[in-house]
Amino acid sequence: MGLYEETLKKITPVDEAARKASRDRIDVLLKPVGSLGVLEDIAEQVSAITGEVIPDLSKKCVLTFAGDHGVCDEGVSAAPQVFTDIMTPMIAEYRTGVGVLSRVAGADVYVYDVGMLHPLPADCKAIDKNVKRGTDNMRKGPAMSREEAVKAVEVGIEAAQEAIAKGYKLLGTGEMGIGNTTPSTAIFAVFGDVDPGEITGVGANLAEDMMGNKVQTLRDAIAINKPDKNDALDVLAKVGGLEIAAMAGVMLAGAAAHVPVVVDGYISTASAAIAIGMKPEVKDYLIASHASDEKGASFGSDLLGFAPFLHMNMRLGEGSGAALSFMIIDAAVAMNRDMATYGDVNMDVV
Amino acid sequence: MGLYEETLKKITPVDEAARKASRDRIDVLLKPVGSLGVLEDIAEQVSAITGEVIPDLSKKCVLTFAGDHGVCDEGVSAAPQVFTDIMTPMIAEYRTGVGVLSRVAGADVYVYDVGMLHPLPADCKAIDKNVKRGTDNMRKGPAMSREEAVKAVEVGIEAAQEAIAKGYKLLGTGEMGIGNTTPSTAIFAVFGDVDPGEITGVGANLAEDMMGNKVQTLRDAIAINKPDKNDALDVLAKVGGLEIAAMAGVMLAGAAAHVPVVVDGYISTASAAIAIGMKPEVKDYLIASHASDEKGASFGSDLLGFAPFLHMNMRLGEGSGAALSFMIIDAAVAMNRDMATYGDVNMDVV
Repeated sequence: MGLYEETLKKITPVDEAARKASRDRIDVLLKPVGSLGVLEDIAEQVSAITGEVIPDLSKKCVLTFAGDHGVCDEGVSAAPQVFTDIMTPMIAEYRTGVGVLSRVAGADVYVYDVGMLHPLPADCKAIDKNVKRGTDNMRKGPAMSREEAVKAVEVGIEAAQEAIAKGYKLLGTGEMGIGNTTPSTAIFAVFGDVDPGEITGVGANLAEDMMGNKVQTLRDAIAINKPDKNDALDVLAKVGGLEIAAMAGVMLAGAAAHVPVVVDGYISTASAAIAIGMKPEVKDYLIASHASDEKGASFGSDLLGFAPFLHMNMRLGEGSGAALSFMIIDAAVAMNRDMATYGDVNMDVV
Repeated sequence: MGLYEETLKKITPVDEAARKASRDRIDVLLKPVGSLGVLEDIAEQVSAITGEVIPDLSKKCVLTFAGDHGVCDEGVSAAPQVFTDIMTPMIAEYRTGVGVLSRVAGADVYVYDVGMLHPLPADCKAIDKNVKRGTDNMRKGPAMSREEAVKAVEVGIEAAQEAIAKGYKLLGTGEMGIGNTTPSTAIFAVFGDVDPGEITGVGANLAEDMMGNKVQTLRDAIAINKPDKNDALDVLAKVGGLEIAAMAGVMLAGAAAHVPVVVDGYISTASAAIAIGMKPEVKDYLIASHASDEKGASFGSDLLGFAPFLHMNMRLGEGSGAALSFMIIDAAVAMNRDMATYGDVNMDVV
């Protein structure tokens, strides 16, 4: 049994007793019951995940995976594919969105090449775990083999396990991959049984007159590959991506280790669809963060029952929304840890 | 000319040249144009407010004002009025929601009695600036006189001026006042020309069978007082509150000093309606934060053209949503200050 199967096997439901103990405390904090809304929900959820009423999640990081996409040959992206090469080292230097926002949130960023077309430069701080030099063009056949998909998932599992071994208690998922709104949209279209035309967006500012081609590429990719929505690994291999696989791996490993994983935006939500498809219990270990501005984002979130709480019209990726959400999660834990209770002032709960 | 009129006179439009310089920089940051959404909007706005492309807003505080409401005699609130007495000192000790969240955000909290029914205890860290021992019952007549309303606004102006003199560069508004969703709803009903029945919510968990009475109280208060929607001070005096007045004062003083002011939730948005009614230019100095879970909140936000970005289902008040938003504003400034540009990698903007 490989790491992938082992990890799936380790995943158990969250701790309902800890959830209840947490909620019991939240309900006597000195505020009208329920009045801190999502902060209360997050505090309760991280208790259920970790088994601790007041977990210490202060050491946190974003794991960002880079991959390229053969489907870029079809003209589905506004940005030239070389941007994956340019951006990945910059992300690892904290010079891009996710790095800057992570610094504000007191988080670290680790960057992995899991599927870039070109090797990382020698002096790069990103970590080489390349499984395949970009996916194949899914308009012509599967993006990758089932074995490659498993290997890419395992890169994510190992990255998460390493982070957890270093003491990180809260993980975020991020990605860099020119063209990757296309496989993400394919994943939502397959799981949600919907025509890609209804949910295809502009990604990184694709011109209006290229949108019809992006939609048709998606329709063709689904028609030729016939991904089986009841087999998440099949969907991932045929119309997914290597970085999408790795992020799903982080989610599986987080769930297996009772560590909360923050889902970033559109692409990360597609990874969540894959991870939940592989093991439904994973869902309770995931914290949705921001409502991406990409067109299909609300469709994807609704499909999974996510209710992202940051409405920032962001669509950058990299893990930038996850980094921002870390601050909100810090606040949720602090609420439960530091607020006075009705007992402290000898009053009845309102 | 008193402090109120002086402050109104000092308010000028925001700096459009600084806004443009900021946007020009944001648009060459290493990301697809527009892809950081609201973070970009906030960064641009604080440049327009301060006149600096990269302002340092790191020293920040919430100013929280406490006041009581004569209309509580009508049974419009679930919490007993004594909670204003109990909570106010606790807020000043950082033991409640706003204090805990402010600590996470690196912000301070200053608490003022502007209109509490009972004097603060002697050993209390809240500051006594009491103008009136609670408003009068607005179902029977005006909540306060025009002069009292001006005095309460001036308490807010002075509090903001003092904070600014201490070096605070970013202010948040907060309040504590059992019963204060009722005057806030009255303010929105008057400015928005709508029947209170359409926008009245449960406040701090008012029982369903008391809601009809709350709505009728609001209808009666508006009918008997006939507030003039073209005279914001008239609306404030007749159906407002002392803490609502003080928060409006903070907004006026922030605008006059080119300091951004973060609007908290439902009650703060009512203050914003008053402040903008007094001087429309104030609007550009205000940053909406969270979409309150109180029923009329989206009506109030839409009325002012606000688009709150935190969707946390919160309805605590105190300035708790403003405190959370400080972290997002920090992130927006860091984005503009620290991200690499397309020029750094010798690429064209995408």
